[in-house]
Amino acid sequence: MDLSKKLMAEFIGTFWLVLGGCGSAVLAAGYPDVGIGWLGVSLAFGLTVLTMAFAVGHISGGHFNPAVSFGLWAGGRFDAKELLPYIIAQVVGAIAGAAVLYVIASGNSDFSLAGGFASNGYGEHSPNGYSMQAVLVTEVVMTFAFLIIILGATHKLAPAGFAGIPIGLGLTLIHLISIPVSNTSVNPARSTGPALFVGDWATSQLWLFWVAPIVGAILAGFVYRWMCPQQD
Amino acid sequence: MDLSKKLMAEFIGTFWLVLGGCGSAVLAAGYPDVGIGWLGVSLAFGLTVLTMAFAVGHISGGHFNPAVSFGLWAGGRFDAKELLPYIIAQVVGAIAGAAVLYVIASGNSDFSLAGGFASNGYGEHSPNGYSMQAVLVTEVVMTFAFLIIILGATHKLAPAGFAGIPIGLGLTLIHLISIPVSNTSVNPARSTGPALFVGDWATSQLWLFWVAPIVGAILAGFVYRWMCPQQD
Amino acid sequence: MDLSKKLMAEFIGTFWLVLGGCGSAVLAAGYPDVGIGWLGVSLAFGLTVLTMAFAVGHISGGHFNPAVSFGLWAGGRFDAKELLPYIIAQVVGAIAGAAVLYVIASGNSDFSLAGGFASNGYGEHSPNGYSMQAVLVTEVVMTFAFLIIILGATHKLAPAGFAGIPIGLGLTLIHLISIPVSNTSVNPARSTGPALFVGDWATSQLWLFWVAPIVGAILAGFVYRWMCPQQD
Amino acid sequence: MDLSKKLMAEFIGTFWLVLGGCGSAVLAAGYPDVGIGWLGVSLAFGLTVLTMAFAVGHISGGHFNPAVSFGLWAGGRFDAKELLPYIIAQVVGAIAGAAVLYVIASGNSDFSLAGGFASNGYGEHSPNGYSMQAVLVTEVVMTFAFLIIILGATHKLAPAGFAGIPIGLGLTLIHLISIPVSNTSVNPARSTGPALFVGDWATSQLWLFWVAPIVGAILAGFVYRWMCPQQD
Repeated sequence: MDLSKKLMAEFIGTFWLVLGGCGSAVLAAGYPDVGIGWLGVSLAFGLTVLTMAFAVGHISGGHFNPAVSFGLWAGGRFDAKELLPYIIAQVVGAIAGAAVLYVIASGNSDFSLAGGFASNGYGEHSPNGYSMQAVLVTEVVMTFAFLIIILGATHKLAPAGFAGIPIGLGLTLIHLISIPVSNTSVNPARSTGPALFVGDWATSQLWLFWVAPIVGAILAGFVYRWMCPQQD
Repeated sequence: MDLSKKLMAEFIGTFWLVLGGCGSAVLAAGYPDVGIGWLGVSLAFGLTVLTMAFAVGHISGGHFNPAVSFGLWAGGRFDAKELLPYIIAQVVGAIAGAAVLYVIASGNSDFSLAGGFASNGYGEHSPNGYSMQAVLVTEVVMTFAFLIIILGATHKLAPAGFAGIPIGLGLTLIHLISIPVSNTSVNPARSTGPALFVGDWATSQLWLFWVAPIVGAILAGFVYRWMCPQQD
Repeated sequence: MDLSKKLMAEFIGTFWLVLGGCGSAVLAAGYPDVGIGWLGVSLAFGLTVLTMAFAVGHISGGHFNPAVSFGLWAGGRFDAKELLPYIIAQVVGAIAGAAVLYVIASGNSDFSLAGGFASNGYGEHSPNGYSMQAVLVTEVVMTFAFLIIILGATHKLAPAGFAGIPIGLGLTLIHLISIPVSNTSVNPARSTGPALFVGDWATSQLWLFWVAPIVGAILAGFVYRWMCPQQD
Repeated sequence: MDLSKKLMAEFIGTFWLVLGGCGSAVLAAGYPDVGIGWLGVSLAFGLTVLTMAFAVGHISGGHFNPAVSFGLWAGGRFDAKELLPYIIAQVVGAIAGAAVLYVIASGNSDFSLAGGFASNGYGEHSPNGYSMQAVLVTEVVMTFAFLIIILGATHKLAPAGFAGIPIGLGLTLIHLISIPVSNTSVNPARSTGPALFVGDWATSQLWLFWVAPIVGAILAGFVYRWMCPQQD
């Protein structure tokens, strides 16, 4: 497969992750009585990955997330020389997803970026006021578990064809746990998209949502590789 | 497979999509305390497609949606000469689904078509008051993503047999994002069924829910075909 | 497989359907703030069938429902001479499930059978006051669709191994639509279990929840057989 | 596979079960308006098992639960000499999961262990005040059904590769039914993790959540083995 087609697949997948996940949060979560709540947002984030894993996973591998690309590299499943182009495609896709969401959300006269636009944050910008330390631990551990799931479900010994289901629903699960803590990132591209629109605190806290997910992902790559090498 | 049997399958599938999706919205969404909300409606729409994809997908391909038929044609997967009969079967099925829903809903003395009967709309008829422009962008982009999922999940390189799961849950995801904006169409037949019962604003806004989904679907057909042709 | 082992499988599956489905409704649906609502009950009913289809489907076929047995017979997939023993095992399992639920529910001092014990009903015993005619139409049409899903997903042309997923989630969907109308039966055994404990109106309305599901199921058997015969 | 790698897999899986399941309950369930409720907690518990079954099931079998190990032994699928090391790895993983959850939860100044920390209990410590007898019956019957699902879905006659789906969603279903009764255990390791942090009533009631699940599991092992032996 051409690199250009792989990058298009990563662009579309990450675009959809941000538009769908953050979109459900911004547009539908808090509506009175019939709103979808954090449960609906959790499901939406997971389904963006489940759907695009089946749609373009056979083109690019379906990372949609710089931490996933790093973790697959650490686990011996992804070539270092494609890391940078993949990450650029993911970040550009995330920004495009946030831009389309901004266009849609602005079609309602009550919309304001001051609502946070689904950005990730800690301290006073954590949805339920969790400290920076708690957010850091959460993002490292959640991304660690996410990569264990990804590395395991795509392993040759795992049942073939199913991987998109546990990976997508794994992201749902991670949101069910950690939206109150950090609004859930585990994905530096997903954090970057909305943060660029909000600016201010969202960009100044953005470092954590690059560092913690990548650390957790690389750690998982090494652990999984020890626990169950991909034999040839 | 006979065309008549394919059309029966499309009729039943689209009947079920409208009866189940719009039915859950009309009958169960807003009930106090235990009502299913937009999350339940999103799940219901997706499950109508997931279930019928497995039930009759091997007969007709399981489109249940004129935009899907157009998108599959643009993607080089569906023969132009079956477009018109498929679309007629889908629209007739949608009207039949809305008719049965009307019969059931009327069995409650509080029922009134003035509640909207799950019709799609923009401006003052958008569930949360989104402008026509926002609804247009939403319907084009959501249908674009829906067709990327469909074209990808049914591609020869994707895992065989799974397609009904990401496609059905993809429709759930689309509803989780866009019910507040347009009540979610991405399907001209689904919009036509209830609109014929409501008339008035619902039929006069119906053009958008034919144009936008078909534009988004055709665009996806061309993009996917470039990104990953169906090789023989 | 011995008939005795098939009947044990049908007994366990229908026991679980009633204990799990009606149990979630009686124990968890209406709890303030964190209760699972009709969405949770819908999911629970569907998951009883999804789980037991994978657990014992290879033993008995996984009917757990007299209407399903009738529909499979009409569709040419089930031998008439096993109809009666299957239905007896299903009804006994349903009564046992209701009995265990009664034992558990009675462990809370606020419990009373006057709450309905998840029985099905019409008119003043419909959850949202739907007429007998609306309930009759609903139960016929919902069971018709359920059997189309079952006959299709287990067809030789459908992807092998998946059937439990669309069938289980199809039952979830049916509940998302019709709990407000009839409390959702589509299964005479499921209706019989709780009704025997409630007596009174529940047993006097029970006839409808035998007649309507079986009529809808048999109709689907004939339609599916025409649309897509099971070739050898 | 080395025993040390199997034990690492059981440790990680049970760690994730407690962190994810109890974590969703402690952090996200009761938040006003957008909180995930018992439905979200039920989904979270099930998804911890679904995800880790696909991630490490091919390493250790994916038990994550002493009752499951006992039930698989009774069903003739697991070697008695690995029972003790598996159970130790599971309990240590559960304690580690509870410890990480404690670190995260403490990052919010309103957190207190007096809220129960997702411990299981009966009588006045049952979420909705169910008696010890009701909790005992519930835990025996729920674990019985859980093991029937596990033994069936992993049977040679069941569709290959799917087992993680019905098993994980089976645990979701069990929570949808029984959170109000016992806060749902069916897993002695899951009960032990949080109880050690809460102490007091939680540790003094812990015996029930070892005895009842193991009794139910062993019973299911014998029943399933009779109903459908694993032929060679």
